[in-house]
Amino acid sequence: MKKISYIDNFEQWAAEFDFFIPIKVRFSETDMFGHLNNTVPFIYYEAARIEYLNHLGFWQRGELHEVEAIPIVADLQCDFLAQVFFGEELRVYVKIAQVGRSSIDIHYMVKKSDDTICLTGRGTLVKINRKTGKSEPWTEEERKLMEKE
Amino acid sequence: MKKISYIDNFEQWAAEFDFFIPIKVRFSETDMFGHLNNTVPFIYYEAARIEYLNHLGFWQRGELHEVEAIPIVADLQCDFLAQVFFGEELRVYVKIAQVGRSSIDIHYMVKKSDDTICLTGRGTLVKINRKTGKSEPWTEEERKLMEKE
Amino acid sequence: MKKISYIDNFEQWAAEFDFFIPIKVRFSETDMFGHLNNTVPFIYYEAARIEYLNHLGFWQRGELHEVEAIPIVADLQCDFLAQVFFGEELRVYVKIAQVGRSSIDIHYMVKKSDDTICLTGRGTLVKINRKTGKSEPWTEEERKLMEKE
Amino acid sequence: MKKISYIDNFEQWAAEFDFFIPIKVRFSETDMFGHLNNTVPFIYYEAARIEYLNHLGFWQRGELHEVEAIPIVADLQCDFLAQVFFGEELRVYVKIAQVGRSSIDIHYMVKKSDDTICLTGRGTLVKINRKTGKSEPWTEEERKLMEKE
Repeated sequence: MKKISYIDNFEQWAAEFDFFIPIKVRFSETDMFGHLNNTVPFIYYEAARIEYLNHLGFWQRGELHEVEAIPIVADLQCDFLAQVFFGEELRVYVKIAQVGRSSIDIHYMVKKSDDTICLTGRGTLVKINRKTGKSEPWTEEERKLMEKE
Repeated sequence: MKKISYIDNFEQWAAEFDFFIPIKVRFSETDMFGHLNNTVPFIYYEAARIEYLNHLGFWQRGELHEVEAIPIVADLQCDFLAQVFFGEELRVYVKIAQVGRSSIDIHYMVKKSDDTICLTGRGTLVKINRKTGKSEPWTEEERKLMEKE
Repeated sequence: MKKISYIDNFEQWAAEFDFFIPIKVRFSETDMFGHLNNTVPFIYYEAARIEYLNHLGFWQRGELHEVEAIPIVADLQCDFLAQVFFGEELRVYVKIAQVGRSSIDIHYMVKKSDDTICLTGRGTLVKINRKTGKSEPWTEEERKLMEKE
Repeated sequence: MKKISYIDNFEQWAAEFDFFIPIKVRFSETDMFGHLNNTVPFIYYEAARIEYLNHLGFWQRGELHEVEAIPIVADLQCDFLAQVFFGEELRVYVKIAQVGRSSIDIHYMVKKSDDTICLTGRGTLVKINRKTGKSEPWTEEERKLMEKE
């Protein structure tokens, strides 16, 4: 298996995921090669990430447009390990890999229905104040939500 | 040619278009049948419609998030006359077909580089007050912008 | 309620739907107005349509790239009855409204979790021979699949 | 400026780009925060990459569905340096950073109209044989196309 920069021990890394959302590949998400187009995993990651943060107690539905500090994506990565096709039923796993002062490193793993890992990924989320445009440290309360896991 | 409900005389209808934006079909916009996926023309229509309204003097870039009354899509239609493939260079035409009290009927026509008409469409746009959620009549000034054409 | 050209009696029309797929609105499917972008319902319609045709016994998963005759979208319509927001859990209903020689007219209805109907739609699907590019009549077997409903 | 793993000397790295495609941010590509949604840069990267490879002489338009060996994305990365909004006119630059036996490392840089660099990225492309699913070395001819730059 190819070396992925953000994964030390693949088996251990994979075993640490718990939360996932199920996603079925849509026809409109394929391309003329018949695969899931390479731009789509990031749509799945975003959906899983928001669901996960909601599950932890962050930004409950409907609040996002009112809050002063919003989560902004600072970077994103995806590694394509196996081809994915129309109609496949995937599980998109997500976990917090590291918590910084005002950011978190979130990791992703996507499994096919036969448990093959087809996609891995990661990305940093930064908490930004909407008015100042500057990063803001996590509150004590937010840290507790993250540490629960 | 098949009968399209919103077109009386096809030749005359086609001749009335003037404004267009050029669009090249992206790889990510194809699907596993190798065609432009059928959900994509509506993305092209939106891009052309906004460009056109800007051209007429409506909602200049950067204003849209501040204005009190915004244009809302009330309905959309598309007819697929010829298959479209990756890399094709299209011209997406747009025109105002009718002006109502607080709405406009906008028509679309998409031509290939060899002038084949591959897509036609239409849709109603309604001017909605953001706070009340209700429709609002066009102002005299707005009517003048539309009549220029 | 506004008049929709493909619906005679709204209550009766709505009551005839049975099959649906659940869809949750993704963050990436919203736009800067905070709504479900108007190009996205067609993605939902395609997903529901394919799921429904599979359910009836057509084009079972994995077959689509091999078959000689494929379903092509000839036209699409959508009416927007209520605004839809991020995170909403929708039910996308689909039914066959009419069967032609080599085409079917498919209707769509989308309900919010409180049963409000937010979107309606329709579109014609034509069975096309991949090699000739021409329409092909439904077989007896296919007609039976459609009449089951 | 934050450290990006695939960039040693930022100024030098930025100066090495030459080829770009212009892209205007579509309304449907924004999200409810009013920004370009974070999944969209990968769509721009793919469009720029294909245009660039075509420009070098690879996979001329219309050939892609016939060739035996196709380019497959092995990984993708994007760093978000500045927020991007609706209607912005971007230049999406692309260059080959390294050539392997059967792969290439492609880098991306996106500039706003005022020359601010808002996005950077990279990704590996692997040449895969469609029938065997295995990687295939670049031919002499292909290497020459890449070295021209």
